[in-house]
Amino acid sequence: MTKSFLARAALLASAPLLLASAQPMMMPPVDDKVAELRDAALDDEMAWDILETLTTEIGPRLGGTPAEARARAWSVERLTAMGFSNVRVEEFQMDTWVRGEERASIVAPFPQDLVVTALGNSGSTNGELTAEVVGYDNFWDFAAAPAEDVAGKIVYISHAMPANQDGSGYGAYGVGRFVGPNMAAQRGAAAILVKSIGTDHNRTPHTGNTNFQDGVTPIPAGALSVPDGEQLERVLERGRPVTISLTLTSRRIGMQTSGNVIAEVPGRDPDAKKVLVACHLDSWDNSPGVFDDGAGCAIVASAAKRIMDAGTPARTIQVVWFGAEEVGIHGGADFAERHNGTDYHLVAESDFGADRIWKIDTNLGEDRKAETDALRAALYPLGIVPGSYEAAGGADIGPLMREGAPGIGLRQDGTRYFDLHHTSNDTLDKVDPAQLKQNVAAWTAMLAVAAGPVE
Amino acid sequence: MTKSFLARAALLASAPLLLASAQPMMMPPVDDKVAELRDAALDDEMAWDILETLTTEIGPRLGGTPAEARARAWSVERLTAMGFSNVRVEEFQMDTWVRGEERASIVAPFPQDLVVTALGNSGSTNGELTAEVVGYDNFWDFAAAPAEDVAGKIVYISHAMPANQDGSGYGAYGVGRFVGPNMAAQRGAAAILVKSIGTDHNRTPHTGNTNFQDGVTPIPAGALSVPDGEQLERVLERGRPVTISLTLTSRRIGMQTSGNVIAEVPGRDPDAKKVLVACHLDSWDNSPGVFDDGAGCAIVASAAKRIMDAGTPARTIQVVWFGAEEVGIHGGADFAERHNGTDYHLVAESDFGADRIWKIDTNLGEDRKAETDALRAALYPLGIVPGSYEAAGGADIGPLMREGAPGIGLRQDGTRYFDLHHTSNDTLDKVDPAQLKQNVAAWTAMLAVAAGPVE
Repeated sequence: MTKSFLARAALLASAPLLLASAQPMMMPPVDDKVAELRDAALDDEMAWDILETLTTEIGPRLGGTPAEARARAWSVERLTAMGFSNVRVEEFQMDTWVRGEERASIVAPFPQDLVVTALGNSGSTNGELTAEVVGYDNFWDFAAAPAEDVAGKIVYISHAMPANQDGSGYGAYGVGRFVGPNMAAQRGAAAILVKSIGTDHNRTPHTGNTNFQDGVTPIPAGALSVPDGEQLERVLERGRPVTISLTLTSRRIGMQTSGNVIAEVPGRDPDAKKVLVACHLDSWDNSPGVFDDGAGCAIVASAAKRIMDAGTPARTIQVVWFGAEEVGIHGGADFAERHNGTDYHLVAESDFGADRIWKIDTNLGEDRKAETDALRAALYPLGIVPGSYEAAGGADIGPLMREGAPGIGLRQDGTRYFDLHHTSNDTLDKVDPAQLKQNVAAWTAMLAVAAGPVE
Repeated sequence: MTKSFLARAALLASAPLLLASAQPMMMPPVDDKVAELRDAALDDEMAWDILETLTTEIGPRLGGTPAEARARAWSVERLTAMGFSNVRVEEFQMDTWVRGEERASIVAPFPQDLVVTALGNSGSTNGELTAEVVGYDNFWDFAAAPAEDVAGKIVYISHAMPANQDGSGYGAYGVGRFVGPNMAAQRGAAAILVKSIGTDHNRTPHTGNTNFQDGVTPIPAGALSVPDGEQLERVLERGRPVTISLTLTSRRIGMQTSGNVIAEVPGRDPDAKKVLVACHLDSWDNSPGVFDDGAGCAIVASAAKRIMDAGTPARTIQVVWFGAEEVGIHGGADFAERHNGTDYHLVAESDFGADRIWKIDTNLGEDRKAETDALRAALYPLGIVPGSYEAAGGADIGPLMREGAPGIGLRQDGTRYFDLHHTSNDTLDKVDPAQLKQNVAAWTAMLAVAAGPVE
């Protein structure tokens, strides 16, 4: 069978909008050992145990806080007990922000409380702030509006974020949180509230970092829960002046210690480039951080342990549980300063929840196409479709990749990720054990190919 | 605010796996008239009425059959009554295949009936065929197996197709249907059965075209429903010889007439390149073809009608309801022979159900980036994320695009599309009217930008 017949067959099979993804493929046979390791991991119990223990015994672990330090100590103990080599912490210092009191109420015309949470890096109201609200349907309407409309007011920004499997709504609609506060501060607003960057309809607001440019004084910046945002919108639509009182007493506590936890499976060839698998150990302070990102740590460590238990891989596998990701990707930046991206054969990060992997993206380059196809073939029986040859990524591994480390993206189903993301609802009951196991199987198969052969 | 700050903010906002889609955007303000047309279309009732009428009064309409001819006559009447200009049919001839009897049973070791349907272009069993079954987990396992294993046998091919929002499972796992029968015929198999290329668990098998290379004699080729496929797999796993009897008496009825239905909204400038919006009018013979593709015809015609009712666009809008897509994209090929891809400013096709549009892909090129951004901005309030600048497509418009017509893809949510696709379950009750309206709003906004301004 020729490739051109495959292409014609795909075309004539009437895959209307799908021709781009219906590219003809030739999947090579999968190595027996790889298949065996992959299929055994579908019965994995290790990842659940790591995740349950971390999120029960440590709970929330905000970057730079004592809770995150407890998480590091727990991690060193756990990874050592699992038999990993060179288990260690690389500490770093970071300017640290912490949450304070959080209250919001509509004062007029229809007095009622609203559920609010502060965004990371929010300024403080220093007590209670009361001001008129000016609302916008989305960030771009705010950006196009006259700057003088918001001076002294509380800006409110809504959005139309959808729940997409690839999580693409976050980038497109999160901009109100990412840069809305900075713009509102530049325009002299008293404060800003955004509708939570989320896809749920629970009264659980979504926190998350925002950033102010150098020279811009941070203003109080909060997120209303999605139902509270919609309630405020209905009030604003009545056309009468709306006044809100807001209390957000978050503050900075100066330089604190965070760190990256590192563990290794030594490879047979000490000169071979390493394979790095990552997650971030820190979480926001309002939940035990199960989907974000305890699950990622559990998945990558369990997969590496399965390789270790099966023998010795050709390449050293480095497991990195990064610190202080949520509050500014501090761990990723520190790691890239100490290590060299070109020392890595492949880097990959699990940081998108605990639901199944649906696609594999890579950027290994044309000269590693055979390895890429072997990775695709190994994952194909798990229902994982081949994605891009030119895309990969992850927050913490981003700095290493900019230094030249090739990457791989095992894309998780994000359909419900932004229901939970950065809310108090990010708890263990949300994990589907079968999907968690599929993740471990995919990461195990990936490592068996990329760091293998295991002997 | 600078683009680089936007990029940095997106990075620091900790969008871990999402940085690729969190590309900084600058959304231009949306023209008031475009926004007005878009928002009014959220109350559209026209698309539902077209869809309900076509699928009730015509029902199934296989390419080349009298049912498809009735659909064309109905379409001319309907589009004329709606006020479109130059309503006409471009007929063409096509070699036509029709379904016959369809029965399958396990004869041994555990006698029981299986639910089967023939694939388009299947050969006939000429009565009842009984043979031993040899099964494979997926197409690539079959491709890698020794050719002699299947001579005289019935090949069975399974797959692990997932339900993905972008429909990517179809391309990756549909290969068993697309080219499995050809390979089985080349290897001397008596017949082939595939697990339905679908994501449901109903006893409604999925038909769909397959193709045999020139010189390869078609063998009987059918699809078991997903539950029947899984049942057969459990039987095969017992390790005893499994015999199936199969009856598929499909046949070819020679050259028959099909055609494309064309209607226009004349633009102010007769020399301006046209905008083409398309769907396919034909369906498979086992359902009234609601998701595939009555909905597409209803959506594009309703959007064009809304532009027509609002005034006159700058460019002529051509609405094309293609014929005989399912059975080989005959209408698209005929249209591209008669028309010239370079006469089109933009071509677009709706052929992925009735669920909401979640992403806009384009390939309008660097010199039309302002128009592309205007399209993205117009759709943003509908929860539609910006996608690729370099991808677009559709089965029927594919030939025009290969001639140089720029394209746009308004990507619909395909999460449940392959539950229904090519099954008897593709019926009107599956349509969510709110999502159908969102489609009409998106297509109306797209036309208001691409064919506008409307005066």
